[in-house]
Amino acid sequence: MTASSDTLNPLQRLAALLTRLPGIGEKTALRLALALVRSDSEYVRALGEAIAAIHNELRLCASCCDLCTGEVCERCRDPKRDSGVICVVAQPQDRMAIERTGAYHGLYHVLHGVLDPLAGIGPAELRIEALLRRLRGDAVREVIVATSPNVEGDATALYLSKLLQPLGVRVTRIASGVAVGGELEYADLNTLHRALAERRSL
Amino acid sequence: MTASSDTLNPLQRLAALLTRLPGIGEKTALRLALALVRSDSEYVRALGEAIAAIHNELRLCASCCDLCTGEVCERCRDPKRDSGVICVVAQPQDRMAIERTGAYHGLYHVLHGVLDPLAGIGPAELRIEALLRRLRGDAVREVIVATSPNVEGDATALYLSKLLQPLGVRVTRIASGVAVGGELEYADLNTLHRALAERRSL
Repeated sequence: MTASSDTLNPLQRLAALLTRLPGIGEKTALRLALALVRSDSEYVRALGEAIAAIHNELRLCASCCDLCTGEVCERCRDPKRDSGVICVVAQPQDRMAIERTGAYHGLYHVLHGVLDPLAGIGPAELRIEALLRRLRGDAVREVIVATSPNVEGDATALYLSKLLQPLGVRVTRIASGVAVGGELEYADLNTLHRALAERRSL
Repeated sequence: MTASSDTLNPLQRLAALLTRLPGIGEKTALRLALALVRSDSEYVRALGEAIAAIHNELRLCASCCDLCTGEVCERCRDPKRDSGVICVVAQPQDRMAIERTGAYHGLYHVLHGVLDPLAGIGPAELRIEALLRRLRGDAVREVIVATSPNVEGDATALYLSKLLQPLGVRVTRIASGVAVGGELEYADLNTLHRALAERRSL
């Protein structure tokens, strides 16, 4: 942007900050900033407060490392959940996605990332130590690795299975293949490849 | 989202507010909220302040209705600009886009919208009265209507040309056709249609 104008400064300042968020480019940032200019002040105040609150109120669960407002999250505190199964996910969104299925009643563990050597993310950057601590302490029968089926997610799953096997815990991986409701014709090559390789008897 | 959890409340609250911004769906809102959780507190504070500032510091220029920090914007105050030409745009982004070309040295007028009867936006919702006031007062030779070449933008241009012609001012419209650097082969039907209809002698 060329303008060095007084006119633009508060706008540009906000837009520049917004571009630091994931998936927000320069044009989107400007569009959002201008939408905020047009919004009523009550909304803008609420948004500012919600942004501040997110840092003040949220912390990581002392057990599963998921985001929570207290010391331990409500899932880890829930006696009705099966504490013998831990589903390992990369990020809080993934935990939410699995929780939405309503089909899982065990506990979770959030790694906050996946192994990605090119981005400088090794085992030490993930919440793996906290997972090991849980496995040593609790009577865990199974660890389901539910990282995404891509290079980094698969590498993380492999790393965890090698790390956890000596502890005598069963390590499983979520299935991957052609999406339910999807058309075989439009499935990408890698998905189809894996769907074939991991075929099951009927 | 199913969770009615204490865990999610600050996150959900922020995500819900973010979905009210244009182009931000539920998933993007959650992704942005989680990115803010991971951001350092200094960034989060700066963002909150920038959002607050946008309402406190920005107002509309008393002359051209563009966003500015003072009473009159720096373009309207600039004696080096040609005050005999006014370029009418729908929104501040459009003014910025034209300004970036560096090819225009007249003044602007920001309508803050285009005529869109289906959305309930008529002439009274746009800054047309302020434009008429400028044309009565200043010695304006030409008004360039630079609304987008779509149904609403064209209707707004037509409306303005009919409204302004009796004032003895020349009303022009920016050219539209195949984009420079674009491939004729990939131009859409309407663009090609207009490019043909508005052909010029060489």
